[in-house]
Amino acid sequence: MSLTNVFFSEVFGTAMLILFGVGVVANVLLARTKGRGADWLLISFGWGLAVFIGVFVAWRSGAHLNPAVTLGLLASGSETYAPDVPVTFASTVVYLAGEFIGAFIGAVLAWAAYRKHYDAEEDAGAILGTFSTGPAIRSYGWNVVTEVIGTFALVYVILQFGNTPTQVGPLNVALLVVGIGASLGGPTGYAINPARDLAPRVAHALLPIKHKGSSDWGYAWVPVVGPVIGGVLAGLVARAF
Amino acid sequence: MSLTNVFFSEVFGTAMLILFGVGVVANVLLARTKGRGADWLLISFGWGLAVFIGVFVAWRSGAHLNPAVTLGLLASGSETYAPDVPVTFASTVVYLAGEFIGAFIGAVLAWAAYRKHYDAEEDAGAILGTFSTGPAIRSYGWNVVTEVIGTFALVYVILQFGNTPTQVGPLNVALLVVGIGASLGGPTGYAINPARDLAPRVAHALLPIKHKGSSDWGYAWVPVVGPVIGGVLAGLVARAF
Amino acid sequence: MSLTNVFFSEVFGTAMLILFGVGVVANVLLARTKGRGADWLLISFGWGLAVFIGVFVAWRSGAHLNPAVTLGLLASGSETYAPDVPVTFASTVVYLAGEFIGAFIGAVLAWAAYRKHYDAEEDAGAILGTFSTGPAIRSYGWNVVTEVIGTFALVYVILQFGNTPTQVGPLNVALLVVGIGASLGGPTGYAINPARDLAPRVAHALLPIKHKGSSDWGYAWVPVVGPVIGGVLAGLVARAF
Amino acid sequence: MSLTNVFFSEVFGTAMLILFGVGVVANVLLARTKGRGADWLLISFGWGLAVFIGVFVAWRSGAHLNPAVTLGLLASGSETYAPDVPVTFASTVVYLAGEFIGAFIGAVLAWAAYRKHYDAEEDAGAILGTFSTGPAIRSYGWNVVTEVIGTFALVYVILQFGNTPTQVGPLNVALLVVGIGASLGGPTGYAINPARDLAPRVAHALLPIKHKGSSDWGYAWVPVVGPVIGGVLAGLVARAF
Repeated sequence: MSLTNVFFSEVFGTAMLILFGVGVVANVLLARTKGRGADWLLISFGWGLAVFIGVFVAWRSGAHLNPAVTLGLLASGSETYAPDVPVTFASTVVYLAGEFIGAFIGAVLAWAAYRKHYDAEEDAGAILGTFSTGPAIRSYGWNVVTEVIGTFALVYVILQFGNTPTQVGPLNVALLVVGIGASLGGPTGYAINPARDLAPRVAHALLPIKHKGSSDWGYAWVPVVGPVIGGVLAGLVARAF
Repeated sequence: MSLTNVFFSEVFGTAMLILFGVGVVANVLLARTKGRGADWLLISFGWGLAVFIGVFVAWRSGAHLNPAVTLGLLASGSETYAPDVPVTFASTVVYLAGEFIGAFIGAVLAWAAYRKHYDAEEDAGAILGTFSTGPAIRSYGWNVVTEVIGTFALVYVILQFGNTPTQVGPLNVALLVVGIGASLGGPTGYAINPARDLAPRVAHALLPIKHKGSSDWGYAWVPVVGPVIGGVLAGLVARAF
Repeated sequence: MSLTNVFFSEVFGTAMLILFGVGVVANVLLARTKGRGADWLLISFGWGLAVFIGVFVAWRSGAHLNPAVTLGLLASGSETYAPDVPVTFASTVVYLAGEFIGAFIGAVLAWAAYRKHYDAEEDAGAILGTFSTGPAIRSYGWNVVTEVIGTFALVYVILQFGNTPTQVGPLNVALLVVGIGASLGGPTGYAINPARDLAPRVAHALLPIKHKGSSDWGYAWVPVVGPVIGGVLAGLVARAF
Repeated sequence: MSLTNVFFSEVFGTAMLILFGVGVVANVLLARTKGRGADWLLISFGWGLAVFIGVFVAWRSGAHLNPAVTLGLLASGSETYAPDVPVTFASTVVYLAGEFIGAFIGAVLAWAAYRKHYDAEEDAGAILGTFSTGPAIRSYGWNVVTEVIGTFALVYVILQFGNTPTQVGPLNVALLVVGIGASLGGPTGYAINPARDLAPRVAHALLPIKHKGSSDWGYAWVPVVGPVIGGVLAGLVARAF
């Protein structure tokens, strides 16, 4: 499979992932939506199904959709990123680029789908909360710990049962992510994916949203560093056993 | 498969889809039901399972159940609408007719199942809300955008992984629809299907319901035009890649 | 398979079905339980999973678990009730007896599991509501209509995709039942199974429960007659097409 | 498979089970989490998915993750604990040790993931409730009855459809556990697993948690004895039929 195809596959898949992921949080948090006030279970299922749909769409490139998965595969010593995509410096860059660009596009699409509700929402914290994660209790060290544990679980299971999310199967990966949200999402909102958090944060900074506030760049490194550590750790542990 | 069989298959399947879909909203919205006040998650699952059951019932004709799927298949350049049903003008008309007639029958059945609760409900908005979708914030342009995005996701995934909903599998299509509801249903109530919205709206206009009000015909074109654009767009994109 | 084995299989499976089904309603309705106040979605999933577990346990006899399924199969003209159980007068009686006896045992087990909460509950309506269904709005005619429609959907799908619940698969039948609960359970609490309603009602009448009231025998015929009509109708329609 | 591998497999799997299981309760009960106040359905799904993930991780050793499963298999007269692990005194001890040690590690990991929320929580009952089960109404005899019934259902289904949880399949076991939680979890919080309750209780006693109170050792025997009786009973019944 050509790297061009890998790129577009990851862009499409990650865009779908973030469209649905940002969308479900927008549905719960923004003013006057039909899902407003639904609880954590809707968010957990919404993100799980976002992964389900993203994995379907990016099937051909293994549906990483997540730099923590790509780097976890790299650390695991795997020879391929997908059945016919060898691990090289170039392919690594293509996956990461596709993931971040796709996530940015997905965030813009979700904003378009909820345009009037972003206009109507006056709470800047709720607006940022639809795009990016934030800590329930700010404590950078422990926030990183939570993200490391959640991402370790994600990548370790994927690496044990196939080398890629598509080999584990869309439903299994989706349920894994529902479980991470239900069980480990409480403290930090489970980024467990640097592209999922950083690219929508950039979209938040760039898009013209009436009542938006700060993009909280002071926290932005946590959902990048935590998931990268968790993913690489999972790769190394999977390699060792 | 004869076009007569296609017709009855789509009528039966779409009737089941709408019976269950209108039913779950009736359960949540109408006076004195046992599910009254349940939240968006019940509605998302209810419509997903409505699709699950409809796909099972219309298995033999590919279970379009949705003009946006039929027109998306047409736009995709597919040669068949189901394993042994060629794409022709006649078969297109049969699918569309079966979908609209089935949806009308399903709405009447749901009304019969909830008859006493329709009698007891005095809020005309809730009554219409069980039959048809309506915007949380009325803005025809952005409402169309939301419906286009939601329907694109539905039809694109179906076209990528089999030509028909039944080839993708009832559970996969159901989960896809649960995800669309959870993530993209907030602004417009996710028609994503012209038959799902228009035929029950006609039923609403015709049925003798004590406290019903306007059928909101001013909005009725949005959940037809948006899904048609989204479905055709998905067909064209699937054809291009 | 001998009729003795059929009998015990249906007894075990229906006992599990009713243990879990009565259990989830007890968890939601009774005083001081951990699930008290959870909403209709928990009940819908709980009954769906009750069917899932019951179908697993009664696999060998086809897991009817429901006289409406047995009579629907009879009406459909099927020659067998399970892969190696021919339809005869004797086998019909054995299925029906196993279903009612199993349902009674399951209700007693659920009462044992929630013993202290039955003691603590002072609302006689809540107590009966854990055992048997009742109408949200009493109207025998329309209550029968609702039960006919729900049971028709259940048995029609089962008959179309295998002759027995086990041939459709435990997960598919479970999701079908979750959908019936979510969408058609609002008016009558979806008995859709005469044994599910009548046998626990007998248990309610016999068990020593502190604050229990009437067993509402005036309504008891509705969740027997409605499901029988719905199941037989589904059998006749399946036979015709 | 060597007993060393069995040991590590059960340690890893049970650690994952308890990390996710304690995690979901922490998310619902502890101060200032994002899932705070979600209802019993989130807890039921969270524990079900915890089992799903644990079964995936401990696949190779059959994923007992639960002394009641190990002892149920022993009582059933099975010759193996997993496809290539014979039932011996040594292997029994290795399973039990792996289960308890893994459960302890999982509880510590969950505490780390929710560290700041354990610090912020001032209700000692909520803190203990994230680690171990407790009765809604204290009544040792009936609490044991509830645990016996729940564990019997768990182990009986597993023994009927494969000798180990992995043979039944991760999704089927997960749904079985969701059902037990929804339907039978109301009175005692469904330990149905001695390691799940006792090892986190030890962790609760040892970990430095600001506002923790008693570890309620007076109740600790119930979620050990009840599940052991239920599991062994299921093994004996499965052997008899």
